Amino acid sequence: MWADIYHKLVEIYDIKAVKFLLDVLKILIIAFIGIKFADFLIYRFYKLYSKSKIQLPQRKIDTLTSLTKNAVRYIIYFLAGASILKLFNIDMTSLLAVAGIGSLAIGFGAQNLVKDMISGFFIIFEDQFSVGDYVTINGISGTVEEIGLRVTKIRGFSDGLHIIPNGEIKMVTNLTKDSMMAVVNIAFPIDEDVDKIIEGLQEICEEVKKSRDDLIEGPTVLGITDMQDSKLVIMVYAKTQPMQKWAVERDIRYRVKKMFDQKNISFPYPRTTVILSEKKTN
Amino acid sequence: MWADIYHKLVEIYDIKAVKFLLDVLKILIIAFIGIKFADFLIYRFYKLYSKSKIQLPQRKIDTLTSLTKNAVRYIIYFLAGASILKLFNIDMTSLLAVAGIGSLAIGFGAQNLVKDMISGFFIIFEDQFSVGDYVTINGISGTVEEIGLRVTKIRGFSDGLHIIPNGEIKMVTNLTKDSMMAVVNIAFPIDEDVDKIIEGLQEICEEVKKSRDDLIEGPTVLGITDMQDSKLVIMVYAKTQPMQKWAVERDIRYRVKKMFDQKNISFPYPRTTVILSEKKTN
Amino acid sequence: MWADIYHKLVEIYDIKAVKFLLDVLKILIIAFIGIKFADFLIYRFYKLYSKSKIQLPQRKIDTLTSLTKNAVRYIIYFLAGASILKLFNIDMTSLLAVAGIGSLAIGFGAQNLVKDMISGFFIIFEDQFSVGDYVTINGISGTVEEIGLRVTKIRGFSDGLHIIPNGEIKMVTNLTKDSMMAVVNIAFPIDEDVDKIIEGLQEICEEVKKSRDDLIEGPTVLGITDMQDSKLVIMVYAKTQPMQKWAVERDIRYRVKKMFDQKNISFPYPRTTVILSEKKTN
Amino acid sequence: MWADIYHKLVEIYDIKAVKFLLDVLKILIIAFIGIKFADFLIYRFYKLYSKSKIQLPQRKIDTLTSLTKNAVRYIIYFLAGASILKLFNIDMTSLLAVAGIGSLAIGFGAQNLVKDMISGFFIIFEDQFSVGDYVTINGISGTVEEIGLRVTKIRGFSDGLHIIPNGEIKMVTNLTKDSMMAVVNIAFPIDEDVDKIIEGLQEICEEVKKSRDDLIEGPTVLGITDMQDSKLVIMVYAKTQPMQKWAVERDIRYRVKKMFDQKNISFPYPRTTVILSEKKTN
Amino acid sequence: MWADIYHKLVEIYDIKAVKFLLDVLKILIIAFIGIKFADFLIYRFYKLYSKSKIQLPQRKIDTLTSLTKNAVRYIIYFLAGASILKLFNIDMTSLLAVAGIGSLAIGFGAQNLVKDMISGFFIIFEDQFSVGDYVTINGISGTVEEIGLRVTKIRGFSDGLHIIPNGEIKMVTNLTKDSMMAVVNIAFPIDEDVDKIIEGLQEICEEVKKSRDDLIEGPTVLGITDMQDSKLVIMVYAKTQPMQKWAVERDIRYRVKKMFDQKNISFPYPRTTVILSEKKTN
Amino acid sequence: MWADIYHKLVEIYDIKAVKFLLDVLKILIIAFIGIKFADFLIYRFYKLYSKSKIQLPQRKIDTLTSLTKNAVRYIIYFLAGASILKLFNIDMTSLLAVAGIGSLAIGFGAQNLVKDMISGFFIIFEDQFSVGDYVTINGISGTVEEIGLRVTKIRGFSDGLHIIPNGEIKMVTNLTKDSMMAVVNIAFPIDEDVDKIIEGLQEICEEVKKSRDDLIEGPTVLGITDMQDSKLVIMVYAKTQPMQKWAVERDIRYRVKKMFDQKNISFPYPRTTVILSEKKTN
Amino acid sequence: MWADIYHKLVEIYDIKAVKFLLDVLKILIIAFIGIKFADFLIYRFYKLYSKSKIQLPQRKIDTLTSLTKNAVRYIIYFLAGASILKLFNIDMTSLLAVAGIGSLAIGFGAQNLVKDMISGFFIIFEDQFSVGDYVTINGISGTVEEIGLRVTKIRGFSDGLHIIPNGEIKMVTNLTKDSMMAVVNIAFPIDEDVDKIIEGLQEICEEVKKSRDDLIEGPTVLGITDMQDSKLVIMVYAKTQPMQKWAVERDIRYRVKKMFDQKNISFPYPRTTVILSEKKTN
Repeated sequence: MWADIYHKLVEIYDIKAVKFLLDVLKILIIAFIGIKFADFLIYRFYKLYSKSKIQLPQRKIDTLTSLTKNAVRYIIYFLAGASILKLFNIDMTSLLAVAGIGSLAIGFGAQNLVKDMISGFFIIFEDQFSVGDYVTINGISGTVEEIGLRVTKIRGFSDGLHIIPNGEIKMVTNLTKDSMMAVVNIAFPIDEDVDKIIEGLQEICEEVKKSRDDLIEGPTVLGITDMQDSKLVIMVYAKTQPMQKWAVERDIRYRVKKMFDQKNISFPYPRTTVILSEKKTN
Repeated sequence: MWADIYHKLVEIYDIKAVKFLLDVLKILIIAFIGIKFADFLIYRFYKLYSKSKIQLPQRKIDTLTSLTKNAVRYIIYFLAGASILKLFNIDMTSLLAVAGIGSLAIGFGAQNLVKDMISGFFIIFEDQFSVGDYVTINGISGTVEEIGLRVTKIRGFSDGLHIIPNGEIKMVTNLTKDSMMAVVNIAFPIDEDVDKIIEGLQEICEEVKKSRDDLIEGPTVLGITDMQDSKLVIMVYAKTQPMQKWAVERDIRYRVKKMFDQKNISFPYPRTTVILSEKKTN
Repeated sequence: MWADIYHKLVEIYDIKAVKFLLDVLKILIIAFIGIKFADFLIYRFYKLYSKSKIQLPQRKIDTLTSLTKNAVRYIIYFLAGASILKLFNIDMTSLLAVAGIGSLAIGFGAQNLVKDMISGFFIIFEDQFSVGDYVTINGISGTVEEIGLRVTKIRGFSDGLHIIPNGEIKMVTNLTKDSMMAVVNIAFPIDEDVDKIIEGLQEICEEVKKSRDDLIEGPTVLGITDMQDSKLVIMVYAKTQPMQKWAVERDIRYRVKKMFDQKNISFPYPRTTVILSEKKTN
Repeated sequence: MWADIYHKLVEIYDIKAVKFLLDVLKILIIAFIGIKFADFLIYRFYKLYSKSKIQLPQRKIDTLTSLTKNAVRYIIYFLAGASILKLFNIDMTSLLAVAGIGSLAIGFGAQNLVKDMISGFFIIFEDQFSVGDYVTINGISGTVEEIGLRVTKIRGFSDGLHIIPNGEIKMVTNLTKDSMMAVVNIAFPIDEDVDKIIEGLQEICEEVKKSRDDLIEGPTVLGITDMQDSKLVIMVYAKTQPMQKWAVERDIRYRVKKMFDQKNISFPYPRTTVILSEKKTN
Repeated sequence: MWADIYHKLVEIYDIKAVKFLLDVLKILIIAFIGIKFADFLIYRFYKLYSKSKIQLPQRKIDTLTSLTKNAVRYIIYFLAGASILKLFNIDMTSLLAVAGIGSLAIGFGAQNLVKDMISGFFIIFEDQFSVGDYVTINGISGTVEEIGLRVTKIRGFSDGLHIIPNGEIKMVTNLTKDSMMAVVNIAFPIDEDVDKIIEGLQEICEEVKKSRDDLIEGPTVLGITDMQDSKLVIMVYAKTQPMQKWAVERDIRYRVKKMFDQKNISFPYPRTTVILSEKKTN
Repeated sequence: MWADIYHKLVEIYDIKAVKFLLDVLKILIIAFIGIKFADFLIYRFYKLYSKSKIQLPQRKIDTLTSLTKNAVRYIIYFLAGASILKLFNIDMTSLLAVAGIGSLAIGFGAQNLVKDMISGFFIIFEDQFSVGDYVTINGISGTVEEIGLRVTKIRGFSDGLHIIPNGEIKMVTNLTKDSMMAVVNIAFPIDEDVDKIIEGLQEICEEVKKSRDDLIEGPTVLGITDMQDSKLVIMVYAKTQPMQKWAVERDIRYRVKKMFDQKNISFPYPRTTVILSEKKTN
Repeated sequence: MWADIYHKLVEIYDIKAVKFLLDVLKILIIAFIGIKFADFLIYRFYKLYSKSKIQLPQRKIDTLTSLTKNAVRYIIYFLAGASILKLFNIDMTSLLAVAGIGSLAIGFGAQNLVKDMISGFFIIFEDQFSVGDYVTINGISGTVEEIGLRVTKIRGFSDGLHIIPNGEIKMVTNLTKDSMMAVVNIAFPIDEDVDKIIEGLQEICEEVKKSRDDLIEGPTVLGITDMQDSKLVIMVYAKTQPMQKWAVERDIRYRVKKMFDQKNISFPYPRTTVILSEKKTN
């Protein structure tokens, strides 16, 4: 039926002119429908989004909805305008080339955003860390407070809330997978009796093992791990419950200090041999 | 009707020549309309912009308006010229290829601008920090003074106003989310009585807790957190109101100094053991 | 047969209109089949995946399946919509150009993912290291716990589980290929009798060789490897069974300390010559 | 009329040959007009440029004008040659592909130039700093002497004129927005009477406040800001007029030195505790 | 003949429908042949590969063969499907654009692989180093154990097997081209008799030259190469057989130590002039 | 006429075959002319080049001329071959795609060259520095010896001739714009009489001002610019003629040393407070 | 004639089938000729190459020849196969897109190679350094042993042969252009008589000037170039013949040491003022 009307119109008036006007009309109608449809989709999207992430306030959603609607509207305007211009046989490729510059810039500029989101997806999917884990990322240590698709939030002990884009995360160190390792390095003068000290440290290990219930594998004395000019270093380590590493270390340090006092072991002050010159200068 | 006139003209004069002239005319008219329309859009844009951001002076808007108008005008001239040349069947693709070089350069060069604006959008949208927050960005600490779509301005305590493009912001550390953490590390000689010092520090904590009302979680003594050659380190920490961290720390430091004086605790000067050589050199 | 019906329909009604509707129908049917087929493929893929890697919980597979199905569904919707629009002779290239921006961004953003997977493939294929090996990657040392196509997991001795994307692995140092090398550098004062010390170290090497069964090539004394202002350094090294390097080193260090005590060798304290000034300052 | 002559010519002689020659002619004429037009545009551009920036000497403009004219001329030659070759049906796409290499290289190489100019535009538009401001850019401090579209010139106090491409400016620190902050850290021995020193510093602050008129917010004593092994640090700060920071700091330092002399406070020489060994070495 | 059958079929049934079905058939047959052919090529490739590099176990080859076969099979499925869809006049370009994203990502991701192989080719072709050479690459020193097209393996003395992708090799230092250089820097107190020491060192050089047969150019005393606050440095160097550098250096060091003992030269302990203050502090 | 012969030939022999041969012939003739023309252009280019830069020896020009001629010749061979192959209807696009790889690589590889030349152009055009200026570029200081389009040559005082590609120049510091700044920092013990020293320095400034004629702004005493544990620092500065900075600084230093001697001011040796322990260690 | 046979064949048998077979045949023949021609070109290329660079052994050329032949052969196979497939109307663009991935990767991967060669060309063309020059490149110093189009080889004094890809060369420092600069910094205690020392150094300069013939500009005393806490520094410099810098420096150092001995000048040992505390600690 519409085809009939169309052909009639073409017959009555000049064919080309009518076809031209109808083509313009067709573009405008499709553009109108496109805008309405896009508005509906945007509305639905933000409604869905606001359900899944309840912490987003209504005011923000409204702002975003209107922002996105405007952006889409302008794209449709541009496309409709381009289609109409094409009816005039205006060469649009050169215009599009100019428009392409912007696209290129946006494409390059947006790659960080995509990188963040791909990294975020894998952090969640591979379960690299969970909220509450104690992690080290890019030299920053702290408790994970939030894992998002774009950023991860880590609360450091004394230095605030670190917000790290996921794409910047090069290596993750998760310190709370199963257990933590408490490590204390004890230094003593190189001329002290090493057997007496090892014996004393082993007694401490026994005491710690008895008095604490947050240990997975009792503290162990590892032997001389370093040998410096005026001191030796012995390592004591213990596998602890997650987040108990520091408490165990402080406990061992306190007991070692007491042992030095009780057993009369001298402290590892740096030592220097001084040779006095016979000659005196002015 | 216009079609009739068109066909008449074509009959009377040589067909091709007329069509050619009319095509040129068509291009010129569209170019003219395009310029007028672009001028109007630019005018509207800057009017809108000047409303939303009142701090931009009129003189600047005028400069920008005329600048943008000129740029758009030259693009339209270029497009019209290209379309006319095409009527002569001149191969424009090679010319466009040459023009494409510039486009590529601009596209690459502008990606930083886009990156800045995408980052800026997410800083505002994700509410990473607000004006007035004390933050650390790329090693720069200060109070946020302005968050823009392209740059963030941070005022450091003594080193002026830092203007950071948002795309350069790799990691944000927000120190004023809810609270701040005051941390004081107290060093004392390794041969001092550790129990006496811990006791003294606990008394100080009690006093601070009573005398101050900007604490969220009273200062706590954490035990021996570090053990060095000639000194031990004990950490005292407290959760404070935002921006009160430094005042609390100074208060604790003052009281610790007084305690050292009163309780006759020796200060943690570095210690050296000197062995005198029997041999004398010249 | 279908062709007959088609031609009949075209005859009865207006040809163009019918063809148009049938084209739309064809697109919709193909889109419908495409969705069903894609759903089936996705289902099969995740079933296969869940078999090969049993550690992935059912809940996660369900989430991923529905996520992927939705993504594919939207792509098919988009393609069908684009094809229908094309029937209206709407210029899709400009729309696709806009869509291309996103593609570009995703393409750039996803390159890290591909890089990770290519690197992962070569780590496995070239057998650079296996689970259980002790390796150093980007300055991080530890025992390999898992080698995946995208990430490698390394457990450090005291600093948790390192998760390194394979694309970030620039150089791998495998310390457990066949054997490990125990190296102890012994310093002694520059004015000591060097022959007495070399002799003592050789005795220690003999003892270690006899008492231990985890050595591949017995410890050897290498001579004066470094000469500093107030000390000389002699290196002792031994080829050991994998992972026995540290135990051997601790053993040697303990014996060297004992030798210094027994043979009355002085320790390598830094030495300073002091010249006293005759002049006294205020 | 021209069409008639054209058609006549075509009839008289062989059609193809004439058309071919006329096409060549057409290309040559357009090329000739193009060159003249480009020359005119270049002339106008440099005339405009020389007006806006008077510091460019005439000799330089002449050089640039002739350089640009030559470059444009060669491009037009190339395009005309390519168009003529196309009349011979020679495949130009492969040739253009070869030419495209150069374009790509130029496009990539020129991106820095574009980046510089975009950055320069935003520095001026956002008013990040003005001529005469004291700024820190990429670790370089000095007074801004010139802000250009491509480079910024900064004069350091003793290290000459720094010329920084705007695209290299990552973060700008403007030290002269409104005011400057004078900060002096005063160290004193840890065993001194802290109250006496704070009192003395407060007296100095009062004196400075009275004697100087370049202060916005009088100097304030901030309490113990750092606690080291053998010294304490107290900070005194003052908000000053722009560029008066250093003069105020020198004034405070001079008065503090005098106070140390008058009040007989000992200076914060580093302290060491020496333990003499009973044993003597050779 | 086949053409006859084809034309007959077309006549009997509806032309378009038959052609359509035959086209589908044709695609399927070619796809089938393609798969068989690809399988054969893959089989041959891995057979060849397994011959040239015998260290690859059969189990690995089987895995790789089946992996590659599957990948190729899926690509052929995709191409066949696309060709069939094209018969329905479905617009494949948009689908291909989507597929192109993946291609782009893979292209970018795989560039490291290509870079490695190009670098590897030049290392082998230019003979930069051979298996057994002692080289330094990116700060890592060791003996080359394997040079592959993608990675180079270097065994360090004590730190395991380094596996370096060839593309990461920026600069190669080959220490075993022809000879090695033994260099010993001898420090002595600045107030010693420099002629006596040079004479002693020359005697040592003579002795070393006589006693060793791994020297290419006998050790030479080079004069005072450095002058510091309390010591002078004299360099002794010798050109040695490859890998004999360290043995020669240890030999010279041992003899120098003996010389210091015999000639009663004092050792270069750092020297300090101490001025005692008349004033005493509390 | 030629057209007649052409048409005759076509009539006599088989049309297609003749047209084919003539097409081949046409390509070969154009290729021949292209080579001759290119040779001429190359010859002219190098002749021009050799005139403008006379330091290029004739031997080098000959080598370059023949090199370039060969390169162009091979490109023309390739294009002619491709055009002929196209007459056989061989699909060249796949071949060109292969050729495109090389182009891409060259395009990317050559971008540094373009970057160098763009930077070089701006250095010369913006007059950032001239031959003879003393500049600091990327941490390298020296006198500019040559500014080229691609490289800049700087002669350091003692470390030879630095050749820096212009694209590597990130920031230029020109030390000889108008004047240089001589700066001498004088340290003295913190317990000295500061007024006596300032007075002495002011006398020196007067003397220097009288005795030297290379000063623009006479030396000035700036007050206490730094306050350290055991010394104070006073800055003396002077604006000098270009390149006279160092001579002025040496002059001031010599006079300051004399002043310390004459006025009996003690030198700023570092000071340490030593507390002797009552306890003696073994 | 061939055209006749062709048309006959077409008439006798079914036209399409014959044309198809002949097209396949045509492709195969061209492919065959292409392979033969490529083989010939490769053979010629390596023959030429082996002549110009005689150091390449015959065994290597053979390997390379057969490698290149194989590579070219596979490319021709691929092109022929693609052309035949096209006769079946199989859509090759999707296949080519897949092939394009590899091209992209190779293009990106090969850019370093191109960069190396462009840099190499300019090093040779601009004569930045020649074989035998002593240069510093990227922190590596040594004598240039070979300058190639891709790599430069530098022999360090004691650290082997450095092989640097030309593209990695950022800045070249050529130390042997015309002359070298010998520089010796002489430190002496700050309380010594500066005139006596300058006089002594000037005597040394005179002696050196007389005794050596490798000086271009005799050694000069430059005055006090640095002023530190307990020492002053005087610089002596001399312009020498290339590579004589170190010998001259050693000569001056030896004479300075002798002067210190003869003139009884004290050596610049670091000085410390010690204040003894009245208080004694435990």
